[in-house]
Amino acid sequence: MEKALKQLREIDKEIVLLAHTAALLGWDQETYMPAKALYERSEQIALLQGMVHERITNPQCAELLAELGATPENPSGNAGLSELERAFIRETFRRHTRAAKIPQSLVVEMAKTTSVAQGVWIQARKASDFKLFQPHLEKIITLLKQIADCLGYTDSAYDPLLDEYEPWMTCREVEEVFSRLKEPLVQLVQQIVASKQRIDDTVLTHRFSADKQAEFNLFVLKAMNFEFERGRLDVSAHPFTTTLGMDDVRLTTRYNEKYFPTSLFGTIHESGHGLYELGFAEEIKGTLLGNAASLGIHESQSRLWENMVGRSLSFWKGFFPQLKRFFPEALNNVEYGQFYRAINCVKPSLVRVEADEVTYNLHIILRFELEKKLISGELVVEDLPQAWKQESKNLLGIEPENHAQGCLQDIHWSMGAFGYFPTYTLGNLYAAQFYDTLCREQPGLERELAQGNLKPVRRWLEENIHCHGAVYPAGELCQRVTGEQLNPRFFIEYLQKKYGALYDF
Amino acid sequence: MEKALKQLREIDKEIVLLAHTAALLGWDQETYMPAKALYERSEQIALLQGMVHERITNPQCAELLAELGATPENPSGNAGLSELERAFIRETFRRHTRAAKIPQSLVVEMAKTTSVAQGVWIQARKASDFKLFQPHLEKIITLLKQIADCLGYTDSAYDPLLDEYEPWMTCREVEEVFSRLKEPLVQLVQQIVASKQRIDDTVLTHRFSADKQAEFNLFVLKAMNFEFERGRLDVSAHPFTTTLGMDDVRLTTRYNEKYFPTSLFGTIHESGHGLYELGFAEEIKGTLLGNAASLGIHESQSRLWENMVGRSLSFWKGFFPQLKRFFPEALNNVEYGQFYRAINCVKPSLVRVEADEVTYNLHIILRFELEKKLISGELVVEDLPQAWKQESKNLLGIEPENHAQGCLQDIHWSMGAFGYFPTYTLGNLYAAQFYDTLCREQPGLERELAQGNLKPVRRWLEENIHCHGAVYPAGELCQRVTGEQLNPRFFIEYLQKKYGALYDF
Repeated sequence: MEKALKQLREIDKEIVLLAHTAALLGWDQETYMPAKALYERSEQIALLQGMVHERITNPQCAELLAELGATPENPSGNAGLSELERAFIRETFRRHTRAAKIPQSLVVEMAKTTSVAQGVWIQARKASDFKLFQPHLEKIITLLKQIADCLGYTDSAYDPLLDEYEPWMTCREVEEVFSRLKEPLVQLVQQIVASKQRIDDTVLTHRFSADKQAEFNLFVLKAMNFEFERGRLDVSAHPFTTTLGMDDVRLTTRYNEKYFPTSLFGTIHESGHGLYELGFAEEIKGTLLGNAASLGIHESQSRLWENMVGRSLSFWKGFFPQLKRFFPEALNNVEYGQFYRAINCVKPSLVRVEADEVTYNLHIILRFELEKKLISGELVVEDLPQAWKQESKNLLGIEPENHAQGCLQDIHWSMGAFGYFPTYTLGNLYAAQFYDTLCREQPGLERELAQGNLKPVRRWLEENIHCHGAVYPAGELCQRVTGEQLNPRFFIEYLQKKYGALYDF
Repeated sequence: MEKALKQLREIDKEIVLLAHTAALLGWDQETYMPAKALYERSEQIALLQGMVHERITNPQCAELLAELGATPENPSGNAGLSELERAFIRETFRRHTRAAKIPQSLVVEMAKTTSVAQGVWIQARKASDFKLFQPHLEKIITLLKQIADCLGYTDSAYDPLLDEYEPWMTCREVEEVFSRLKEPLVQLVQQIVASKQRIDDTVLTHRFSADKQAEFNLFVLKAMNFEFERGRLDVSAHPFTTTLGMDDVRLTTRYNEKYFPTSLFGTIHESGHGLYELGFAEEIKGTLLGNAASLGIHESQSRLWENMVGRSLSFWKGFFPQLKRFFPEALNNVEYGQFYRAINCVKPSLVRVEADEVTYNLHIILRFELEKKLISGELVVEDLPQAWKQESKNLLGIEPENHAQGCLQDIHWSMGAFGYFPTYTLGNLYAAQFYDTLCREQPGLERELAQGNLKPVRRWLEENIHCHGAVYPAGELCQRVTGEQLNPRFFIEYLQKKYGALYDF
């Protein structure tokens, strides 16, 4: 058994090294790569990804896992093993069986289809032409159903797709959580829209030079204890975080000189992801367990930093004097309370990535409802634009005038990523629930934030969440950290309290 | 036979993609990688290099090569194949047989030994402590002799080592060429030292801001037609050029604000390498033949641009007005002839990388003589410092006061790179010979340079040298381009003419 574990670990080690190398190829492509290198770069990435896939599906893995007692009913294997060993077996079993169930031909067809579809999506969005994209989305959904069939499910075909991003969670569980979230959210938005209290956010559109924004980003990252010996911040067209090594996590941002919040909150958000990736305990670093428990948990880390901390009054009490030093002209006559209100302006809008933290989740519920129906067949692709409009009206009270601002706005579906969207809102919910526990366990926290001290947040997250990596499934982690299962009431209460004060109800 | 070729090409393709990926890992390590990522990065590079080695030594290659008629006597295989096919087979045969002859255990031991030795060398150089480094160098030489034995040789054990860097050239050939170079060089240096003509180069040590240097570097690279859609210039501690894709060649430089020539001539030098790597013909790009014919030929491209072009009077007639625009303060009262003299000041010195283009080759002859003797056993490592001093005195007329400025100054031997040094001087010799042909074929060249037009140089090199890649061995390429074998007289005449005018003899 010792030997089988050792062999599995060796295979895992190669997978980690190859996956990190593939991540470097991707990072470089988005940051520094010269334009014409794209063609060979795609081949390099495909080769490395193929090598990773080969190792994940290696038939020897199945034998070793069987030897260790892992079965679909008992994926963690032999009861005599340690907790860490059983977690490692569980995750290896999950990864191997998922990948091994999908025939290579289907993997290749999906890769080709989405590669073409992404190009078409860019054109279609530019021209706001849904018909152009429609056949590609139809093909993707056909393939996704085949993949779901290969993976198997008892309840809905959406389950095995969701499981890719939010392991061990079912569609029904998401539905249950979202159903408790939806009504209070819609109501809250209506209260805000109806409020006589108006927020003036024109201060954010003064000119903030990119150089100074970059300096302030570094200042905040340092306060968050982001270790620059183990990471970097660069510029890319679309912000992301990527892990190139167990001691090498890279963030990117972009600068908009006419709208200051994009880069700062984007950077805090990515740093939240980055700190998670840098916080895995020594004994799981560089292994399969040195990974997020789920995308929802990953997103909880970015959202907690971005919203619960970064958009809080206490944070700006501490950091606004610093911000003013960087931008004396733009912020000359502004005080921190005014700035706090500006960055928390709520307004139903059509584009998800520009949404505030309240309406954002309605965008997600909309997508979740529609993609479930697309997979079940309840909704055909042809009718998607109309359904989108209708749901937008229902949830946000507004509807898009064109497809570019409607069902063509996101890249995800063109990549075949169905089941991904709900993890964004799960992240917000987990974030609020974790933050509630954090505040209860550290009653002096707000005072620390107001003094510009972010270390207690970083430390608590590291000790309670980051260090565990993927040792516990998301649900179990939530239970251990907060004492209960995921519960949307924390998020709802957080919003009601914050926005009740801001909008005076 | 078609099928065998196709299979060899597929293996080669994977090698190219993996080698370029390994090169990205290396480039990133020297430019942007955060410090603590080093440990895993070394593992990533080792894994990728291992995969390349596995593919090069793949026993299937030997079978396919045999099928194509390749033998040690006839490495290009079946006479019925095209010239390109035969060149591809020749280079594949060479690469495979060299690698397959060295047992894996010896490869691993060499890698471990040099990895440790490089760390020790850094310490030893810092402390100028040769005794510290001595046992490591002894071990390296023992292993190199074993490698030479595995590879086999008829004349000297140095031959198979040299062949790694300068394929198809023998130690005796280098000796013959160097013997014709040495006396005239020593004589030339003596004439310069004896000359009453003094060159004032204080202008170079004014303050030149790094930002402006970077801008001027880009200006010159553009004039050289370096395509920024297929390459970049970044900063690293030690300048280098690396190829990350057939359309992705990256240069690095470093800035010294108190000594201007370091970065500019370094950048022109690296760009000379880079243009070669970017100039391979379409039909060989991304294959084994899309590579330099030899390190000597590679160096000829960097030296031709750096010295024959970049340190010429015509070049500065064209570019000095531009340079003045970038550095109006430092160059206010300077005219181009004065600047030309300053950058061509000759003075025997102890450190190779700081040497001028005349004395530089004496540093190389010194190393070549000593490393040959170390391999043959004529010189034991213990006596190296003394021998170095003696040769330095003989060739340069000066001797080092400590080992850091003597036999510990270069990294090459700690890396096991014996046979590498001579390629630097071969590069200078090839460069002068190529440049002579270029000037004869394009009589108006100097006029073009004087107008800041570098395109004719770029075009001629691309059409006559770059496009061929490794299709012709270095000697054959030289014959085709210049009509004769490598002949040191071109370089000697070039130096005599240039420095006779500068130093008035």
